Amino acid sequence: MGINFKNLFSSQKNKSTMGDYQNLDHIDGVAISTVSANLYSNSRDDLVIFYFRDGANHASAYTQSTIVSENIKWNKNQRNEKVYSLVVNTRNANAFTGVKGYQSMQKLAELISLKLTEKQKEDDNNPITILSEQILFGCTGTIGETFPYEKIKKNIPKLLDQIKYTQNKFIWTKAALGMMTTDTKPKLAMEECFIGSSKVKIYGIAKGSGMIQPNMATTLCYIFTDAKIPNDILKKLLLKNISNTFNAITCDSDTSTNDMVSIFATNKANNQKINSISDKKIFDFDKSLNQVLLNLAKRVVADGEGASKFITINVKNCHSEKDARTIGFSIANSPLVKTAIAGEDPNWGRIVMAIGKSGIEIDLTKLSIKFGEHKIVANGKLIEKYDESIVGDYMKNYAIEIEVELGIGKKSFTTYTMDFTKKYIEINADYRS
Amino acid sequence: MGINFKNLFSSQKNKSTMGDYQNLDHIDGVAISTVSANLYSNSRDDLVIFYFRDGANHASAYTQSTIVSENIKWNKNQRNEKVYSLVVNTRNANAFTGVKGYQSMQKLAELISLKLTEKQKEDDNNPITILSEQILFGCTGTIGETFPYEKIKKNIPKLLDQIKYTQNKFIWTKAALGMMTTDTKPKLAMEECFIGSSKVKIYGIAKGSGMIQPNMATTLCYIFTDAKIPNDILKKLLLKNISNTFNAITCDSDTSTNDMVSIFATNKANNQKINSISDKKIFDFDKSLNQVLLNLAKRVVADGEGASKFITINVKNCHSEKDARTIGFSIANSPLVKTAIAGEDPNWGRIVMAIGKSGIEIDLTKLSIKFGEHKIVANGKLIEKYDESIVGDYMKNYAIEIEVELGIGKKSFTTYTMDFTKKYIEINADYRS
Repeated sequence: MGINFKNLFSSQKNKSTMGDYQNLDHIDGVAISTVSANLYSNSRDDLVIFYFRDGANHASAYTQSTIVSENIKWNKNQRNEKVYSLVVNTRNANAFTGVKGYQSMQKLAELISLKLTEKQKEDDNNPITILSEQILFGCTGTIGETFPYEKIKKNIPKLLDQIKYTQNKFIWTKAALGMMTTDTKPKLAMEECFIGSSKVKIYGIAKGSGMIQPNMATTLCYIFTDAKIPNDILKKLLLKNISNTFNAITCDSDTSTNDMVSIFATNKANNQKINSISDKKIFDFDKSLNQVLLNLAKRVVADGEGASKFITINVKNCHSEKDARTIGFSIANSPLVKTAIAGEDPNWGRIVMAIGKSGIEIDLTKLSIKFGEHKIVANGKLIEKYDESIVGDYMKNYAIEIEVELGIGKKSFTTYTMDFTKKYIEINADYRS
Repeated sequence: MGINFKNLFSSQKNKSTMGDYQNLDHIDGVAISTVSANLYSNSRDDLVIFYFRDGANHASAYTQSTIVSENIKWNKNQRNEKVYSLVVNTRNANAFTGVKGYQSMQKLAELISLKLTEKQKEDDNNPITILSEQILFGCTGTIGETFPYEKIKKNIPKLLDQIKYTQNKFIWTKAALGMMTTDTKPKLAMEECFIGSSKVKIYGIAKGSGMIQPNMATTLCYIFTDAKIPNDILKKLLLKNISNTFNAITCDSDTSTNDMVSIFATNKANNQKINSISDKKIFDFDKSLNQVLLNLAKRVVADGEGASKFITINVKNCHSEKDARTIGFSIANSPLVKTAIAGEDPNWGRIVMAIGKSGIEIDLTKLSIKFGEHKIVANGKLIEKYDESIVGDYMKNYAIEIEVELGIGKKSFTTYTMDFTKKYIEINADYRS
C-alpha cells in the first residue's frame, strides 16, 4: 500500500531498531519450530512450538470473556513455576469444544512433554523430566468445530525434529506467519535494553484480527526475553504494560474467547536479581517491554480487517485514567466516527456525540478537540477561523490523530483503532459468497 | 424491496390496523402544518408544527448523553402543565451551538407563541394567551453547524398559515416525511382502544436511521392521543412503555444528543378520570401505547442505515432482566454478528463470542441457541444433527430471530436490531458530501 509505517512503529529508545523492519535474531534459551499440520487445505504453516530447553519463567494475561477456549482453561489450570514449551496452532480455536477439546490439550501436553523429555536425554548434559503441566497452548481460528487433535498429534514428531536452537529473522518470521489467520502481515517487534549493567533482549510476535469460518478475531501476543526475572515480577510487568498497549486498542469492539498475551523469560542473561517492580534496575526493561507491546499492538490495529486508516485518540486531562479510557473507547468504537474517518470527513460532531454517549461527566466550556494540529473546538466552541477544507486535507493522511482535551483533571489515556470500511463488511459478511 | 412487513409490525390487538399501512386520520385537538424552510437545498419539507389549540398534557423522555442539544435544554427548562405546540426541524440538530443555539429556541418560541396567540384571537371563541414556555422543540440533523434561525423564522408565518385543524393520512405522512434525515421511509403507527367505555386514539410518528442506541429515549418519536390523562400518569406510562420498545432497539450503538420521545394528550375524549397507572381503566390504553411505540421502534430499526435484515434477539431465562438486556445488546451491537447476518451466514460462533464478552455470568452447560426454529446449541453443546445448510437457508429470510436460552433464571428481554452492510459504510462515510 506504500504506507510509511516508520513513524508509527518506531522505537523511541533504540534508533537502531527503528522503522517497520526489526531484525530479530537469537535469544538464548528459546528454540523454535514451525510446520504445516494441514489444518488449512493449502499446506501453509499452522503449528508453531517454542521450546525452552532449560525452562522459562512466565506470566500470562487472558481474555476477559466469560466464555473461554479449552486451551486457555488448560493454561489456567497449570501452576508450575517453569514452563518448557508453548505450542500455538491456527485454524481452530478449540473453543466451545467441551470436554473433548480439553482432553485434546491434555493428551497433546502428555505427548509433547514425553517427546521433549526424550529430546533432553539425547541433546542435553543434564537432562530433566518435563511434565505435561509445563506445556502451554495458544489456539486461534474457528470456534465450535471439533479440535483437529489427530492432525496435530500426527505432526508433533516432525515439529520437534525440526526444532532450531539458534534463531534468525527467518525463523521468527516463519513462526509469526505460522500463527496468522487472515492477518495480512506477520507482526514482530524487538527492543534491547539493560538490567543494571547486563544487556538483555525483548522479542515479541503477535497475531491480530483474522477471519476463518465461523470467524473470530483473536489476539495472540508472545514476548520472549533472556532476562532473569521471577514469575511474580513478570506478572506485574505484563499487567502494567498491557494496560496502555494491548488494552488500549480496539478494532471492532468484539472480544474473543482465545485472547492471550504471555511473557517468557529464559533467565539466560546474567542480570542482577530483581525483587520488585519498583527496583530501579528494571526501569529500562519496563520501558522497553512497553515499547515492544505497543509496537505489536499498533501493528494489530493497522492490520485490522479492512483498515484504511490508523487512528490515535488522545483523551487528555480527565478526572481519572478510567474516564479518559472510557471516552477514548467510546470514540474508537463508534461506527459513526469510524465510517466518517473512512470517508475522510472531519466530522467532529460525531466525536462530540461519542464523548456525550460515554456518560462521563464533562465541563463543556472546557472541552477542546483537535484533528492533528488543527484546532476545531476550543473551550466548548467551534473556533471562529475553522476551515473545514484544511482539516479535510488532513483527513487524507493514513495516520489520523484526534485529541480531546477535557481540562478538568490530570489524567490522560491514548487509544488506538482503525476505520470502518466497506472492506470490513466484505471480509466479515461476504466470506461465503 | 418487496418485503412483507405485515407480520413484523402487525398489531396484536387491532386486526383492523394490521400490516404496514395504518390509516391515521383525525385526532381532536391536534392541528398540523409542514413546510420547506429550505434547510436542505432541494426544497423538501423540513419544518413541522403540531399545534394544540386548547393545550395538551404532555410528558417526554430525553437522551441520556451528557452532551444534549439546545432544544432539549430549552424543553427541559419549561415547567408548564400544558403545552400548545411542538415544532420540529430537520437538517440541523442545534447541538453544540452554545448560547446562540439556545437563544434561537427562545426567540422562535417567543415568535411562535405570539403568532399563535394572534391565531387564537382570530379563530377561537375563547382565545387564550400562549406563552413562549408552552412551545417545545424537536431538532435533528448535523451537530455543530450554526442553527439556521433566520431561515426558520422567515418561514414561521407560512407554517402557521397552512395549519390544518382536521388531519388525514396525507397530512400525517407529510409531517412524518418533514422530520426525516437519512430515513428512507416515514414512520407512522396507530391504535384505538378504550378507557372505561370511551374509545380513544393513539397516533404516533417517528424518525430514526443513524445514532440509534438505547438508554432512555431514542430518535424522535411523538405520540398523540385525544385521551384525558394528567401529566404525571403520562410520564409513568411513557417511561414504562419505552423500556421494552425504544430502549430495546439498537442500530449502531451510537447515541444522539437529540433523542426525544414525547406523548401529548389533548383531553378531548370524554373518558373517566385516571388517578394512577394501576387503575384498571388504563390497562387497555397502556397496552395500546406499548403497541404503537413498539411498532414505531421496529420501523426505526427496519429502516436503520443500510439495513437489509430485521433481527430479533430473544434472551431468555436469565437471573435478571438487566442481564438479559446486557446480553441482548452485546449480541445486537456486535459488528461481527451484524456482518455475519448481512452475509446470511449462520455464524453461531459469533453469538457465543458476544454472550461471552457481555461479562454476564452464565452456566455453559445450560446454554441453548436457536436461529428461528432451528436448534443449534443445546445445553452448551453443538447439537449432533446440526445441518448448516438448513440454517443457511433460514438466513436468507428478511426477518431473523435469534433465541438465546440461559436456563438459570426467570427473566427475559427482547432486543431488536438490523444487520451491518456496505451500504451503512457508504451512507456514513459520505453523509455530508
